[in-house]
Amino acid sequence: MSQLTEKELEDLLTEIGRQILDQGVGSIGRLGQWGCSTVSVEICPDRINAVIDAGACRFGVASTSAPSLANVAGYIDHTLLKADATLSDIDALCSDALRHSFASVCVNGVHVRRCAEILAGSPVKVCTVVGFPLGAMAPEVKVYEARRAIEDGATEIDMVMNIGALKSGDNDFVRRDIAGLAETCHRMGAKLKVILETCLLNDEEKRRASILCKEANADFVKTSTGFSSGGATLHDVELMRRAVGPEMGVKASGGVRDAADLKAMVEAGATRIGASASVEIVSGGTSSGGY
Amino acid sequence: MSQLTEKELEDLLTEIGRQILDQGVGSIGRLGQWGCSTVSVEICPDRINAVIDAGACRFGVASTSAPSLANVAGYIDHTLLKADATLSDIDALCSDALRHSFASVCVNGVHVRRCAEILAGSPVKVCTVVGFPLGAMAPEVKVYEARRAIEDGATEIDMVMNIGALKSGDNDFVRRDIAGLAETCHRMGAKLKVILETCLLNDEEKRRASILCKEANADFVKTSTGFSSGGATLHDVELMRRAVGPEMGVKASGGVRDAADLKAMVEAGATRIGASASVEIVSGGTSSGGY
Repeated sequence: MSQLTEKELEDLLTEIGRQILDQGVGSIGRLGQWGCSTVSVEICPDRINAVIDAGACRFGVASTSAPSLANVAGYIDHTLLKADATLSDIDALCSDALRHSFASVCVNGVHVRRCAEILAGSPVKVCTVVGFPLGAMAPEVKVYEARRAIEDGATEIDMVMNIGALKSGDNDFVRRDIAGLAETCHRMGAKLKVILETCLLNDEEKRRASILCKEANADFVKTSTGFSSGGATLHDVELMRRAVGPEMGVKASGGVRDAADLKAMVEAGATRIGASASVEIVSGGTSSGGY
Repeated sequence: MSQLTEKELEDLLTEIGRQILDQGVGSIGRLGQWGCSTVSVEICPDRINAVIDAGACRFGVASTSAPSLANVAGYIDHTLLKADATLSDIDALCSDALRHSFASVCVNGVHVRRCAEILAGSPVKVCTVVGFPLGAMAPEVKVYEARRAIEDGATEIDMVMNIGALKSGDNDFVRRDIAGLAETCHRMGAKLKVILETCLLNDEEKRRASILCKEANADFVKTSTGFSSGGATLHDVELMRRAVGPEMGVKASGGVRDAADLKAMVEAGATRIGASASVEIVSGGTSSGGY
């Protein structure tokens, strides 16, 4: 295939985007008009920017690679949100995260400062939760809670959407609630993930919630708190990825217990995994020869 | 029995207090030295002040009365804390509370203002939750959340204690966390209940937590959030009543489903009941002829 002109490349990217939005990220169709008649590819959504940057005809290579062992840990927010977690539990969580190079530790607000001190100078981030796990506090309280956590050292905020407002059809309230947090997080240099609590929603509600998160400028949509009646499913991750498009993050959390679960979630469109069984996920992957 | 002198009455009250603290509120021993040789009584803790006011020899009468139908509803915080409660669910909760004269509605923070508007001018209070249900947010965030709720119209705040700090042995942190809320609530005219989440604690921890609540000037100790692995038990209510003495409130919540449960909890020392099955409790009590 010859070098594409700038216009042809732009059209190709537009078509890829359209197909992804229409059909989901699992696969995109043949792109014959650009001379790519043999291309029918699987794309990891977290790679799409790199793939696009690399040029059209290298999609096949980039897209079919499963996560390698080296980067599996980098998908994981190593999570301990139990009400009765002790300080020594939190210290052990941080040690695990340093040893395995997880993306972050995800802890309750009262532990943020301690984790930030332990992890200072390392690439492991501190993630915390806001309005957790019910999402039903006043918006101003969520903002205050996030601001306080970022001041204490958190750089990722996982908020719970106002689920009752979504179910009451008050899209404006849901969007404003998220946008307030997004504005605060971005101004202070943090990322915002929004937990939908998918087990409480029907598919229309999951789709609507995902789009509201995107409109409100959140960085990620996230499936679950781990404290309700169910966790992440492949169906929900695929649906959310389809709803938000290729650019936003999708975090699958709740019930991801081993390397196979993680791989399946990533293939369905997840770019981050919330797990408490993180060490088992990484170790299991090693011992079974996976990844 | 002849009229007691003021000194004798004071000694009698001291002895009753001592026995209650030593042996629990279920019963107090014979008080022969005051001529009450036939007195061996059950005392409802919420009545103790009235009983004391009424004089020693009327204990028998006051103490053995079960809650009457007229006041059963007055024990109940009519509760809806589900993440996915809609506005119409909240409106229905308020209607029920008005119809049955429950003590309060207990709702998540985002619903406080709406409930306060609906219930304005009625005796039904608005109760809300803080740091709920994990109790693991920074103390300043709990204070902010409480202040905001009281400004919105709440007059009762049910906070969750920092359970991890209790388990880590950091009594000072637990006490300060509660004291900060108590100070804010009392300054703004609200009552503070502290949820221990008894299902996560052993008996020593329940006792220690109860005493810390008392030292921190809380108004009530409360058993459960309803979102963990268990609710109120008679054992826990008795233990908490014994630990805090006769003056503080004790709220039993989680798993109180009918009139018999409520009666048993009150007899064990509860002065308030948190329930979502409140209408069934009141109706069941009526239809079976109880209370």
